[in-house]
Amino acid sequence: MKIIVLKFGGTSVGSIQRISKVANIIKSYSKKYKVIVLASAMSGTTNKLINMSQKISKNFPDHEYDTLVSAGEQISCSLLSGQLLTKGLKSRSLMAWQIPILTEGKHKYSRIKYINKTKILKFLNSGTIPIIAGFQGVNKNFNITTIGRGGSDSSAIMFAKFFKAERCVIYTDVEGVYTTDPNKLNSANKIKNISYEEMLEMASLGSKVMQPHSIQDARLNRIDVEVKSSFVKKPGTLITKRKNIINNKIITGISSTDNDAKVTLLGVKDRPGIAASIFKPLSQNSINVDMVVQNISSDGNETDLTFTIKSYDLTKTKKIIKNNKNIIFKKMIFDKNVSKVSIIGVGMVTTPGVTFRMFQALANKNINIQVISTSEIKISVLIKRANVIKAIKSLHKEFNLEK
Amino acid sequence: MKIIVLKFGGTSVGSIQRISKVANIIKSYSKKYKVIVLASAMSGTTNKLINMSQKISKNFPDHEYDTLVSAGEQISCSLLSGQLLTKGLKSRSLMAWQIPILTEGKHKYSRIKYINKTKILKFLNSGTIPIIAGFQGVNKNFNITTIGRGGSDSSAIMFAKFFKAERCVIYTDVEGVYTTDPNKLNSANKIKNISYEEMLEMASLGSKVMQPHSIQDARLNRIDVEVKSSFVKKPGTLITKRKNIINNKIITGISSTDNDAKVTLLGVKDRPGIAASIFKPLSQNSINVDMVVQNISSDGNETDLTFTIKSYDLTKTKKIIKNNKNIIFKKMIFDKNVSKVSIIGVGMVTTPGVTFRMFQALANKNINIQVISTSEIKISVLIKRANVIKAIKSLHKEFNLEK
Repeated sequence: MKIIVLKFGGTSVGSIQRISKVANIIKSYSKKYKVIVLASAMSGTTNKLINMSQKISKNFPDHEYDTLVSAGEQISCSLLSGQLLTKGLKSRSLMAWQIPILTEGKHKYSRIKYINKTKILKFLNSGTIPIIAGFQGVNKNFNITTIGRGGSDSSAIMFAKFFKAERCVIYTDVEGVYTTDPNKLNSANKIKNISYEEMLEMASLGSKVMQPHSIQDARLNRIDVEVKSSFVKKPGTLITKRKNIINNKIITGISSTDNDAKVTLLGVKDRPGIAASIFKPLSQNSINVDMVVQNISSDGNETDLTFTIKSYDLTKTKKIIKNNKNIIFKKMIFDKNVSKVSIIGVGMVTTPGVTFRMFQALANKNINIQVISTSEIKISVLIKRANVIKAIKSLHKEFNLEK
Repeated sequence: MKIIVLKFGGTSVGSIQRISKVANIIKSYSKKYKVIVLASAMSGTTNKLINMSQKISKNFPDHEYDTLVSAGEQISCSLLSGQLLTKGLKSRSLMAWQIPILTEGKHKYSRIKYINKTKILKFLNSGTIPIIAGFQGVNKNFNITTIGRGGSDSSAIMFAKFFKAERCVIYTDVEGVYTTDPNKLNSANKIKNISYEEMLEMASLGSKVMQPHSIQDARLNRIDVEVKSSFVKKPGTLITKRKNIINNKIITGISSTDNDAKVTLLGVKDRPGIAASIFKPLSQNSINVDMVVQNISSDGNETDLTFTIKSYDLTKTKKIIKNNKNIIFKKMIFDKNVSKVSIIGVGMVTTPGVTFRMFQALANKNINIQVISTSEIKISVLIKRANVIKAIKSLHKEFNLEK
């Protein structure tokens, strides 16, 4: 029998009733596969634990934070394993240290380096289903660590890698990845297959199904990942290698953001390296600059510079720009009521005229494009936030993503 | 510096505010001692976890139960260690597997067999306070276990044993051990020193300060145990070797029970071994028979037998007696409105007339004694429950336990 990795998120194990349903899902797989289960903490638990630590100190020590929050997975995994045993299956909960799952890097932001397979293989070969605590590991000093980036999804993908699993199934509270946010457009369709690259763009551009780091892990290790709902029995979305996808659509999906802000510096005194002078201190303060446009002014001495940041970084950004002794400019203006809308699809590489069709569709709806940025498989435009729904609707239709 | 073991119970770490106060207590000891801390789960946590497991199954598997409930200590210990670090002390939370604390015996009812001292000694020598999860251990297969009998108190006493600590201080929500239950008698006094043996009698007879198993562990290992409150700064009660106690009181304390039931079998056909025939099936069903009185009837063929059990065992007991084919009797009567009142004191060994004084004091108050049982250091009587307060009051006065 082949190995499959199943991962259940916080809402999927969020109550005793939900844990019972999850046990049934596991049971159905166990007839065809050797099943490895990764589980998150019950929804709400991790936040509750973090809140307690915050009451002690806003700077609660990282290594104790890791020990604290990893108690959440200990609870959900032992309950789930107990539930499977009660349903007559052989099962065992395993914390990271019992395997062990070895991590490297700092507390709170560790990365899985190595998974010892011995114990789990023994369980699998004796028909016992291991229920493994996601999100946690141990470092070489046998201190408890957590893997911030991607959390339990990352754990699941690393298990799929180490055990050469046929597939990693991420059970969550959504049915899969959609052509666009179903909350914004009723006619959004579930995507059957999507490439890692497209999914990465969808994820980092605002789709909340999986964290970019986990998708990147899956891509690097060529692991097929299926995202589906533990609440309804329906096929989900398969995230896979580009060559596995047979798709006659140019565009796979449309994403949009809700928390961008646009900053414009007018009359910036131009000189070589001026952009670096502006952006370096922002980067040093962990402010992520996304889209950038620079206009050369007619006399060649002054330029206007526009860029976007996350709106929660705006106050900090304004302060840094004002205190920046290395730049001279006439005026700073900003706009918090902007959104980035992107069309994503590997198909656009081989299809000419996609950019034109996008701009035309928006123009037809009188939507003004403020900033443009492109990559091989996506085109993003910055527009007024008020126009987002209208824009998504027209693009969804233009690129035949309707049902 | 000498080593001291401090144990904090569930109410002592029951909230973030409480954890902060406990950190202050630890800090004050750390100036004079190398401190080892054992902590219970925050009050309510363990019960909440058990309730969840019960919703899955009334027979939730024991090994998953151990993993589940031990998450409680993981939470309290990491929070407490984080709090100490925030207050500028060096500290580290340690789960049983990180030490390790090796246990033997069944899940849920394991016993601590061995504590590896290496890691903790390293911490102590570098001025780091280890905050150790009570109640838990690991077995030789590195599965998480819990020690049912005595819980975190037992953990603390075993640490005091292995590290040859000067003292084990049990911080709890009472101020110490009293001459009698302060809820029943206002004039009850805190006992300054009490021997293990007296404390064992006090505990098993109804004083709820410490579990008998932990006291027994302390007695076997000759460890001085101080019981005190983490809520008020007052001296507690020292439980110690008998020879350490200078006491001019005959009686150290008075205890009483609230959940006894009396069963009487009238006209039991007498033959050798009849008592065993009655009590063996009770014992096989884990029913604890406490006081026993047998009257030889005048003709020598029949006898009346009276014994006490816990009142929650009454229904089961009646059923077992009725189905017992090995005994013949005329009538079974029972009384749930009885209580056992005991006077305890090592002083009575050397003092004649204690029994008489007890009986006389009760007779003076018109309290009828139904059953009597004695040991070297205690005398117990079974009386009507309605008379308990009156009895305690008169005995408290008779044996000079008043303030």
